[in-house]
Amino acid sequence: MNNFMDKIVSLCKRRGFIFPSSEIYGGLGGFWDYGPLGSLMKNNIKQEWLKRFVQQKQDIVLIDGTVIMNSKVWQASGHLQSFADSLIECKKCHSRFRADHMAEGRFVNQGKAKQKNQCPECGGKEWTRPQMFNLMFKTFVGPVEDKAHIAYLRPETAQSMFVDFKNVLDCSRIKIPFGIAQIGKCFRNEITFGDFTFRSREFEIAEIEYFVKPGEDEKAFDYWVKEWERFFLDLGIRKENLRRKEIKKKELAHYSKRTIDIEYKFPFGWSELAGIANRTDYDLKRHSQFSGKDLRYFDDKTGKRYFPYVIEPTLGVERLLLALLCDAYQEIKGGRTKTTKATKEVEVLLKLNKRVAPIKIAILPLVRNRPEIVEKAKEVYQMLRPYFMCCYDELGSIGRRYRRQDEIGTIYCLTCDFQTLKDNTLTIRDRDTMKQKRVKIKDLIKVLKEKLEE
Amino acid sequence: MNNFMDKIVSLCKRRGFIFPSSEIYGGLGGFWDYGPLGSLMKNNIKQEWLKRFVQQKQDIVLIDGTVIMNSKVWQASGHLQSFADSLIECKKCHSRFRADHMAEGRFVNQGKAKQKNQCPECGGKEWTRPQMFNLMFKTFVGPVEDKAHIAYLRPETAQSMFVDFKNVLDCSRIKIPFGIAQIGKCFRNEITFGDFTFRSREFEIAEIEYFVKPGEDEKAFDYWVKEWERFFLDLGIRKENLRRKEIKKKELAHYSKRTIDIEYKFPFGWSELAGIANRTDYDLKRHSQFSGKDLRYFDDKTGKRYFPYVIEPTLGVERLLLALLCDAYQEIKGGRTKTTKATKEVEVLLKLNKRVAPIKIAILPLVRNRPEIVEKAKEVYQMLRPYFMCCYDELGSIGRRYRRQDEIGTIYCLTCDFQTLKDNTLTIRDRDTMKQKRVKIKDLIKVLKEKLEE
Repeated sequence: MNNFMDKIVSLCKRRGFIFPSSEIYGGLGGFWDYGPLGSLMKNNIKQEWLKRFVQQKQDIVLIDGTVIMNSKVWQASGHLQSFADSLIECKKCHSRFRADHMAEGRFVNQGKAKQKNQCPECGGKEWTRPQMFNLMFKTFVGPVEDKAHIAYLRPETAQSMFVDFKNVLDCSRIKIPFGIAQIGKCFRNEITFGDFTFRSREFEIAEIEYFVKPGEDEKAFDYWVKEWERFFLDLGIRKENLRRKEIKKKELAHYSKRTIDIEYKFPFGWSELAGIANRTDYDLKRHSQFSGKDLRYFDDKTGKRYFPYVIEPTLGVERLLLALLCDAYQEIKGGRTKTTKATKEVEVLLKLNKRVAPIKIAILPLVRNRPEIVEKAKEVYQMLRPYFMCCYDELGSIGRRYRRQDEIGTIYCLTCDFQTLKDNTLTIRDRDTMKQKRVKIKDLIKVLKEKLEE
Repeated sequence: MNNFMDKIVSLCKRRGFIFPSSEIYGGLGGFWDYGPLGSLMKNNIKQEWLKRFVQQKQDIVLIDGTVIMNSKVWQASGHLQSFADSLIECKKCHSRFRADHMAEGRFVNQGKAKQKNQCPECGGKEWTRPQMFNLMFKTFVGPVEDKAHIAYLRPETAQSMFVDFKNVLDCSRIKIPFGIAQIGKCFRNEITFGDFTFRSREFEIAEIEYFVKPGEDEKAFDYWVKEWERFFLDLGIRKENLRRKEIKKKELAHYSKRTIDIEYKFPFGWSELAGIANRTDYDLKRHSQFSGKDLRYFDDKTGKRYFPYVIEPTLGVERLLLALLCDAYQEIKGGRTKTTKATKEVEVLLKLNKRVAPIKIAILPLVRNRPEIVEKAKEVYQMLRPYFMCCYDELGSIGRRYRRQDEIGTIYCLTCDFQTLKDNTLTIRDRDTMKQKRVKIKDLIKVLKEKLEE
């Protein structure tokens, strides 16, 4: 299984999906950059999510809040107090580690530690008592670095929706039940990170805070679990690779009445891809209390004010991207294309859903040494670019180029060949079936729009 | 003119374009949240930019880098040394101010300052000597808050393109001249902020680093100035509200050979909307030097390696959004719609370009008390939502609803009326001409696609 993960990491690096951030400086643990293909794919995922959950839902509006907020927000939310790990510090070298990791015996044979209680950095055996360490990145706003000017990078997007709740109500006249959606960067100063991009320190969350009448929260909870799952399935994730995990009562976050994680079967094991939490009226109540503003909802039918309950479906954008890559990755031993000698190689097929695939169409001249064919292919490329994300490739044999496109999940390859010069047609090759069909160049835009946008 | 700005700010708040971040806690200076309309508009601007400069340009690839990078990046880039303001501190209350602001006499009659050298906070007159204050937000990565773990929030996106330069070349086999594009969050701990969102501490930049052979930089510079201007004009900004400002040699940033700012005539005066800089080979050379990696480009035709020159067209996403709002805002005294008694009021028309307008289509039942009409309108709303960003409104007179849509720049209003019940047609009202045309409901999707995507 780790072998499989290595292949994904290697593909990501080699073809430009994901690189380590600041790699020429040795990187920075838990930070990843998205390359030419990865950034397109990430944008596709986000736009697909927006289309589905904002454009197509009449009861959901979008916002886009700041990463840095007034630090009172984190007092009210409980993050300043609760969003922390218990750490111990080596008295000799001052390195810090998670107390639970030492207790579990994870240090043994790591670095300079031979025994459970030795420091992996220096071998030291004396430790401070465990202290709570907050996982929010801290900074100072304004020129003075004192307590009054501390601010935090948000570890979740949800608080914007609560803090802006009244503003959204006032400007949109929307009525309960309704949701506020947001996609945005979050930052967590994780002590341990890893499994490629899975546990990163900088990442994007796409989530909805869905406000309902108390008493209608459980029904809404069930609805959103299903909606969330359907989104993943519709993007092509295989059903057998998804499962629900009910979070045990004693493990629930401080604000949660119920949480279900949606786990994906990553190569490193079943892990959280998304979640649905019943945050109750905790957040709005706390913000009312801490801000002194009345954040209750006014029901104009009953004339009563109340604190709505909140259902929060949330997902990690980069986790979804990684799951989509893992799910789409297939190796065909002996090769699937029969065009060249290379049929003994292992061929890679990245069966990405057409809506998330970074490149929709590759335009290929059959041969490189016939200027009329090359010119025709470039014309088609120019013609299609206003409508679709395309690429042009003329390097190497046609079979090799098909394989190169299969490896990054390109949906269709269009090939201009000798017949193109006679009748202005070209072949459309379907990535998954490898079937080729001739189409008139003048019908291309229409045909491709139908295929890609159906 | 300030009156005009007040109207924009008020519209933004009232209709849900822009709110102060953390407003219920008194806000946080220089931070703004984008509401239901603002967040849609911002996304439209970014997608339009991506379509134009990534999808439609064959020589530009996208990346999406992290906000937090290895801090060596900022040593190499020169930001640690040069990206700073000179500050003085009041010895009494420890407030800090920009030294140049005191010298210019800006404190006089501000707060408790009667005289030039008095502290606006406490009236104190004793100051420290000026000290350089870096404008990058500082944080710590990992559990230890010491010098070795300092990191900064990026104040510009450009450095990702230089640091990832080799990775992009290796994965995409692209050849010079080519560009790397990025849109992303940046953070600057500005001492002074203001003019609404114009000078914010958290904002998004959309920019391209365009790599060329030395000697071809000046031509590329001119090209990108024009391309950038054309983008603004095509989004509907009026020509007379744009101008170029050549930055004087002695005012150039440390890396720049030449810079032209594109200024927009904001209500508070001509101010920078975007810029084009010739960064020479400064960045790649410095990163080579500091990382020990060879970041020269290999020209496979000549067999030679060299450091490319870099032309950087850059723009502030939120500044463009603000410029588009200001440019589109019109007041019509006496009213433009003649349908109701309210014609003596001032009516607002937000003449946003159809590609950036947050809502493309509003669906309105002519009256609210005829269930068949309401039902029909809701059906149309359901039918169109998969294709366009729509809204539905049934509250108030039809004239009032048209005005409400005009105020937020909605391109078309579709009205279901009594005739709809007879012949399944409805009226399409054009925002700018106010002309209405009857269209068959079954042709709607096609007609609207043509109108909106032409």
